[in-house]
Amino acid sequence: MPVFLDTTSSEFETAFKTLLSAKREDSPDVDAVVAGIIDDVRKRGDAAVIELTAKFDRLELTPETMAFSAEQITEAVDQVSSEDRAALELAAERIRSYHEKQLPEDHEWTDSSGAMLGWRWSAVSAAGLYVPGGLASYPSSVLMNAIPAKVAGVERLAIAVPTPDGQVNPLVLLAAQLSGVDTIYRVGGAQAIAALAYGTDTIAAVDKITGPGNAFVAAAKRRVFGKVGIDMIAGPSEILVIADKDNEPDWIALDLLSQAEHDESAQSILITDDAAFGQAVAQAVDKRLETLQRRAIAGPSWRDFGAVITVRDLDEAAALSNRIAPEHLELCVADPVGLGAKTIHAGAIFLGQYTPEAIGDYVGGPNHVLPTARSARFSSGLSVMDFLKRTTLSRMTPQALRAIGPAAAQLAQSESLEAHGLSVLARLDRLNS
Amino acid sequence: MPVFLDTTSSEFETAFKTLLSAKREDSPDVDAVVAGIIDDVRKRGDAAVIELTAKFDRLELTPETMAFSAEQITEAVDQVSSEDRAALELAAERIRSYHEKQLPEDHEWTDSSGAMLGWRWSAVSAAGLYVPGGLASYPSSVLMNAIPAKVAGVERLAIAVPTPDGQVNPLVLLAAQLSGVDTIYRVGGAQAIAALAYGTDTIAAVDKITGPGNAFVAAAKRRVFGKVGIDMIAGPSEILVIADKDNEPDWIALDLLSQAEHDESAQSILITDDAAFGQAVAQAVDKRLETLQRRAIAGPSWRDFGAVITVRDLDEAAALSNRIAPEHLELCVADPVGLGAKTIHAGAIFLGQYTPEAIGDYVGGPNHVLPTARSARFSSGLSVMDFLKRTTLSRMTPQALRAIGPAAAQLAQSESLEAHGLSVLARLDRLNS
Repeated sequence: MPVFLDTTSSEFETAFKTLLSAKREDSPDVDAVVAGIIDDVRKRGDAAVIELTAKFDRLELTPETMAFSAEQITEAVDQVSSEDRAALELAAERIRSYHEKQLPEDHEWTDSSGAMLGWRWSAVSAAGLYVPGGLASYPSSVLMNAIPAKVAGVERLAIAVPTPDGQVNPLVLLAAQLSGVDTIYRVGGAQAIAALAYGTDTIAAVDKITGPGNAFVAAAKRRVFGKVGIDMIAGPSEILVIADKDNEPDWIALDLLSQAEHDESAQSILITDDAAFGQAVAQAVDKRLETLQRRAIAGPSWRDFGAVITVRDLDEAAALSNRIAPEHLELCVADPVGLGAKTIHAGAIFLGQYTPEAIGDYVGGPNHVLPTARSARFSSGLSVMDFLKRTTLSRMTPQALRAIGPAAAQLAQSESLEAHGLSVLARLDRLNS
Repeated sequence: MPVFLDTTSSEFETAFKTLLSAKREDSPDVDAVVAGIIDDVRKRGDAAVIELTAKFDRLELTPETMAFSAEQITEAVDQVSSEDRAALELAAERIRSYHEKQLPEDHEWTDSSGAMLGWRWSAVSAAGLYVPGGLASYPSSVLMNAIPAKVAGVERLAIAVPTPDGQVNPLVLLAAQLSGVDTIYRVGGAQAIAALAYGTDTIAAVDKITGPGNAFVAAAKRRVFGKVGIDMIAGPSEILVIADKDNEPDWIALDLLSQAEHDESAQSILITDDAAFGQAVAQAVDKRLETLQRRAIAGPSWRDFGAVITVRDLDEAAALSNRIAPEHLELCVADPVGLGAKTIHAGAIFLGQYTPEAIGDYVGGPNHVLPTARSARFSSGLSVMDFLKRTTLSRMTPQALRAIGPAAAQLAQSESLEAHGLSVLARLDRLNS
């Protein structure tokens, strides 16, 4: 049973805080193992990668077969059905179109002192995208990570994907091809992250690593952070649906289940201003759980972490939403735009009953890599910006240095940084002589 | 002696790689101590903070005296000289003006399917800024961290600054006042980071923590990351100056020393296309080191990590600069804009001989919190963006869902995520009936 809460209850605040602080993930402590793997790859390079791949993926590689050849990719991609290909192409086009609008502009201006100031954006030179193997090998995630990188202008984009027993998902290769990925290494786990961060003879080092992965991959990303950039370490998926009674309970139930089916640790929450509607949705969830293919995952998620919260009105719903700061927020109410203006902290907002969250997972356009575990309070989903960095620019003229240099020298003196001050004063002396 | 390298030497590549990989910082391993402090503050709140402050800072606090009172701030600020105040005000005004231009715009549009797409920026609700005590208690750093937060729209901005033996730098309080900081806690170390991240009865939890600190503070920031956002963990400061022979050697020497005087682990590198000029700068550095107040810091930095590199031409200088990816890059050449277009990876670029890096530390306008240790390859300096997060928006119409929904359902099926597909198909069934 999911929890049923009601804001009019005297026990609500305590129960809501428990819900907020529920620990949904028990990450195994794999840090020592991962540290050993990274050291090994740094020291022995390709040889370590090949050994670890034989051990974990039961796949014998050589430096020559570490990346898929063009022929292997073509052969695999040819197996993709025309329906799947058309859907993936539509998704790629829409994701590209959305992310192209994110490209920020450079800016330069001259201020009243005569100084030129500004900034310039440039792309990370090389990026590596980790793609899990097996059940979580989602072609949509390839699009969501690779397209922003290429839109940003990343010159060299590599994928690392484990292919246990040699098996590969042809859709993953097609998604990589559609995204403009340059190289696909059939290597996974912490050894893939280490190779991308430090480089081997065969796998060239990159500057930034993104993409989801298991506990080993997450621990490896944390460890190489600093040597390279990384994206967020994502937790289990979450959805919050705020719905009034004028909704079809089964639609809302399916939206809740579309998060629950990802992971037993996923969390689906409904907030409604109509208790009877909340009950109807819970019943619809139970009915769907009787037949859902992934009921063995979605069932535990809903029972252990699901919640139905009844509120007095939608303003109260918005306030609770801001405390939850959900990864996905669906607003199925009469005025979703009005309510959306009040729900400040959320990774992605889906407005109105014709915008199921699943649209955003595939073809909406916005990125589906979003902040989990309440981190939408301070972070954003993946975007073109993650593959760009900004260089600030400044150029003083003699006039500008005369105008603002003395203040710099004054502050340098107050901070006891003599050389800082002298570097300005030496120039001012010349200008004033 | 700094190292002298020449790109025409057969040993250059090996020596340059050694320079690039030089480990300049030996962080003490304080993680276990920090973990204990964080646990203690989480469990015992104010009582732990008060005990730890008595122990480390020899200062007896109560919940009532944990934050500076308005009277205490006024009293301290009144001690600031009018020269220091005027300089700090000029700096604050210029930093604010620069950062106001960074505010990004929201964006919404309707695409050809009829879907509304877009994104919205919003500020982090509450931020905490750590300010070191003692020698590294720089008022300029307060401005550089606090002003971007307030420009972004952070509602509640708190500072934590240790005041060992009760001592405080009045300029730090003035800088906080000029920046619009709301509360100043006289608490430092890992206990301050823990209190800001988890909250105590007196110190309210924040969503994001920025600012420099010692090894304990850095380790604490790493540990609370995820619970709150953090900025980068900064390493020792660096400067790369690219200068041709038409420069005053003493000016360039002072620019190199203005990094070296920060820290024995700081690194100052000169690249020049004129070997004799390189020698002249090295001599000027030595001469300045005879009298510089902080020669006990700047001397070891220059001798252990300094370098003078002679190149064939400035294109070669740009290529080396991109491999170094310096925090600060000064271009003292005839065409700094032209050379700047080729130096892609740098935190901040200072163009021309009238733009000493120290200008950027105080009054230039751009932020002085910049990526160190080659991380300018993939990251940017502190900015307004660090205190904002983006929420993506999408709204399907029935027409849009008909157009793109089937592709979403197709991809959901290919990823074996049945509920994802059904959430779309259930709506399409209704629309098509």
